[in-house]
Amino acid sequence: MRLTVLGTSASTPSKERNLSAIMLNFEGLNYLFDCPEGTQRQLMKAKSSYMKIHAIFLSHFHGDHILGLPGLLATMSMHQRDYPLFVFGPKGVKEKVQKALEISLLKVNFEIKAIEVKEGKIFEEEKFFVECFKLNHEIPCYGFVFKEKDSLGQFQREKALKLGIPEGPLWSQLHKGIKVKVGKKTFKPEDVIDVSKKKTGKKISFVFDTLANNSYINKIKDSDVLFHESTFLEKLKDRAKETMHSTAKDASKIAAKAKVKKLVLFHFSPRHKDTEKFDIEAREFFGNVVAAKDLEEIEL
Amino acid sequence: MRLTVLGTSASTPSKERNLSAIMLNFEGLNYLFDCPEGTQRQLMKAKSSYMKIHAIFLSHFHGDHILGLPGLLATMSMHQRDYPLFVFGPKGVKEKVQKALEISLLKVNFEIKAIEVKEGKIFEEEKFFVECFKLNHEIPCYGFVFKEKDSLGQFQREKALKLGIPEGPLWSQLHKGIKVKVGKKTFKPEDVIDVSKKKTGKKISFVFDTLANNSYINKIKDSDVLFHESTFLEKLKDRAKETMHSTAKDASKIAAKAKVKKLVLFHFSPRHKDTEKFDIEAREFFGNVVAAKDLEEIEL
Repeated sequence: MRLTVLGTSASTPSKERNLSAIMLNFEGLNYLFDCPEGTQRQLMKAKSSYMKIHAIFLSHFHGDHILGLPGLLATMSMHQRDYPLFVFGPKGVKEKVQKALEISLLKVNFEIKAIEVKEGKIFEEEKFFVECFKLNHEIPCYGFVFKEKDSLGQFQREKALKLGIPEGPLWSQLHKGIKVKVGKKTFKPEDVIDVSKKKTGKKISFVFDTLANNSYINKIKDSDVLFHESTFLEKLKDRAKETMHSTAKDASKIAAKAKVKKLVLFHFSPRHKDTEKFDIEAREFFGNVVAAKDLEEIEL
Repeated sequence: MRLTVLGTSASTPSKERNLSAIMLNFEGLNYLFDCPEGTQRQLMKAKSSYMKIHAIFLSHFHGDHILGLPGLLATMSMHQRDYPLFVFGPKGVKEKVQKALEISLLKVNFEIKAIEVKEGKIFEEEKFFVECFKLNHEIPCYGFVFKEKDSLGQFQREKALKLGIPEGPLWSQLHKGIKVKVGKKTFKPEDVIDVSKKKTGKKISFVFDTLANNSYINKIKDSDVLFHESTFLEKLKDRAKETMHSTAKDASKIAAKAKVKKLVLFHFSPRHKDTEKFDIEAREFFGNVVAAKDLEEIEL
């Protein structure tokens, strides 16, 4: 799994920082979290393929989180994308995608599955699922958890064949933790899976624009990496409250309560030129923290 | 007068090049020609003020020429712009501006005067005017001429006062080349203007997406600087025809016919990594040519 920080600015880009977005690469496909203006170019700079984007998750519809969508869709279309793209977002995401196409007179040659999210599991594939949860912002805004599924252990081919369980769908069911029947015999996953090789899947959480509070701590609990917005430094905490954003201190307290392994701060107001200060401020309350830099990569 | 090349790419940005746009700075105000995705950040990098933009000229409505508009308007609004902005463009520009605001739920605090252009003079201020002319592209597309007005010469205050012409509107009329009456006496501009100090105003032409042909040569004649699109090299001339674009050779032939002083090529397809080749190809037909680089400035 590779995480690429595509941008770290809030509300407007700056000379040094593009607007905030994060790409997650998992088993050869890409998952994009938010899509502000300039995202496609940041992807090019990061050497992260926009053609391999399987799904885009939009936290909310403020311009600084979605205005890269029209250009990204245009570029995908121009490069002959012909397989579906998922776009998840709050209520109205279908119309938002429609507007994104209309504004540049675009007819794309691939299907766009625009899906309105509610709290809970919104997307599931064989090896991972994505959950979303409400945040506290001026307009409906969601955070996301990307959860790699836990592995029960190593599947033992030889043992399965010896027991007379034929290769195919039954193996797959056992792998998922489901009992199967062959003739009159019932087999449990433990019969063919070496549980000593059990592995907990990685958990990555994304907290976009929000007033920090306890409402979402349970959702992000024990994350391997928590990306948390950190628009202001503590000296502007009143401004943070007023605009429903978090400070670096807020984010670090949340990280501590949620017992995450690593906190990555992003979404910095352009008022703050020096992002190292976020780092320093947060470290008082949570040790393993970093203020993200544009195009930084995290390998897990 | 200062010209800043904000981007030089066509259809999609690349790692090295943003999409094509040009800023013209004249007497403290800025005039933006096209507004693709990423324009606001390029302006920041160029240290060219987006708050000083007096008018935006949109050549046509393909996404790679206008998708920076929503973000730029949002940023202007966020920074408390409270004076009008002109946006010139083909038929439908009012709706386009409307869509640009809607897509990011934006309510701006300044007036946007969206004006549909036709061939001819579209904008006039005291010291310059802008003309536009049709190009030959897949959808309606216009080129622009920014013409600094010629100066008749230096106004001689002492002489005017001696002749009994009172300071005020009459001076301004004489300055513009109009005869005035004071009592029964009529004065001609030459009576108070030192015509030995006559100055021809600069002429800058912008030719965006077009199949190169003679139809617009008269409009751009004798330009001090001609910006001409140059999407492809000659080896892709069939592709240029098919997509209604120009090659470097096309642009240089146009420049020679129009007897411009300097040709600046821009709008290069990302297929062509090395823009120096455009330069070399064009120079065969026109001497004073340069393939523009992102953030390059030209002082006149």
